[in-house]
Amino acid sequence: MTATVYLVGAGPGAPDLITLRAARLLEAADIVFYDALVHADTVALAKNAEKVAVGKRYGKHSAAQLFINKRLVDAARKYKTVVRLKGGDPMLFGRAQEEIDALAEAGIACEVVPGITAALAASAELGISLTRRGLSRSVAFATPRVGREEQPSDWAASLINADTGVLYMAAHEAREIAAQLIARGKSAGTPVMVVENASLQSRRHLTTLGAMAHEGLPALEGPAVLMLGEVYRAALEAATALPQSPRKANNAAK
Amino acid sequence: MTATVYLVGAGPGAPDLITLRAARLLEAADIVFYDALVHADTVALAKNAEKVAVGKRYGKHSAAQLFINKRLVDAARKYKTVVRLKGGDPMLFGRAQEEIDALAEAGIACEVVPGITAALAASAELGISLTRRGLSRSVAFATPRVGREEQPSDWAASLINADTGVLYMAAHEAREIAAQLIARGKSAGTPVMVVENASLQSRRHLTTLGAMAHEGLPALEGPAVLMLGEVYRAALEAATALPQSPRKANNAAK
Repeated sequence: MTATVYLVGAGPGAPDLITLRAARLLEAADIVFYDALVHADTVALAKNAEKVAVGKRYGKHSAAQLFINKRLVDAARKYKTVVRLKGGDPMLFGRAQEEIDALAEAGIACEVVPGITAALAASAELGISLTRRGLSRSVAFATPRVGREEQPSDWAASLINADTGVLYMAAHEAREIAAQLIARGKSAGTPVMVVENASLQSRRHLTTLGAMAHEGLPALEGPAVLMLGEVYRAALEAATALPQSPRKANNAAK
Repeated sequence: MTATVYLVGAGPGAPDLITLRAARLLEAADIVFYDALVHADTVALAKNAEKVAVGKRYGKHSAAQLFINKRLVDAARKYKTVVRLKGGDPMLFGRAQEEIDALAEAGIACEVVPGITAALAASAELGISLTRRGLSRSVAFATPRVGREEQPSDWAASLINADTGVLYMAAHEAREIAAQLIARGKSAGTPVMVVENASLQSRRHLTTLGAMAHEGLPALEGPAVLMLGEVYRAALEAATALPQSPRKANNAAK
């Protein structure tokens, strides 16, 4: 008999933004493998479990991923309840499929528990909906790789053709991304809302694609989501409409 | 003094897929306004609250929305903790902005608590990630209106240009949607995964865009998400690769 391995979304950061199901599984877990960016209080819910930190949330190397896969398989043969705790939601930029497939190949049962993804937490915090009647009926989520657009598809096109665009793991390439979106026809005046550490000690930056192409973003310390589109226009205008001397659009607005 | 109104995501359906924060707010609520599709056990978490059913989850009329806005404002002036419980996540096809704006205009504090959106719950249940290394780096979410593509934007383009497409509130127009995506250049062989009642008594249907354009979908009783793209290819092939007589691609596969 082997255990079921639960791939559990830890949500955006705040420990009370995990699901009831996730919290109960953590309480029952014998061993938990957690991403480095998961909040310590979330990991601590697994009060009876051996706790193993594995890799980083973003940008994992394949070798590290293969090692995680192997550890999950080994644990399933040794423990009763195994939890793999991943930041955000496992099925949206969580690289869950590699772990699901490795477990399936080893004949080990696997269940996935969804989590709150960062863009939804950021939107809740901002009070600005990703969709809005008359303004946004489509939202594209993407992880760009500048200069590698062909594999597997054209990330820029998905963003250009959606009313609201959301970029994960993109802050370090913000300038190149903005330049490319503008070169491909997106308006330089498109409002951009950046939320760092959504649901925790979050910070927000308002700018435009054009300003971001020229100046990039301020230095960010935590994970960030970049969101763009007309739904952020009113917030951008409120942030830049100071009396006498209009502030530059890319100043932080909180 | 007026209350804070909490716009709370009830998640996809299963009562244990709400967040800890949402559960605590429900327990503390004096009054809860809930969408018709929210699970009875979720509403019951508000054990000390007056419970008021308001409208349907999808397709609310504007008049009904204005009435809900007014009731939230009135309740904030009468009660201490007011919860507005919405299916899924409030900020993704939840029409939250209209309620947020109405509360802001009335000078009432409002906080949004994110929820698990149906596509993430469906993906968890399927064990098929929306993104996948080498196969999908972009996901578009849209609510199509066939024949009204111009307002505010071209929903079909957002789906055509993303690796994985997710459609909400689309099952009733499945045939027309598929025909239009094909006419616009999406391959008729694109796999389509339909999940009805994600996280509850869910049913799934596997088909292709081409078959959906010809035959539509089987009758659905609950809310459904339509998901399309190459990430569903293996599931489609497994469902159709029966010995001797290959089943038609649009048969239910569970």
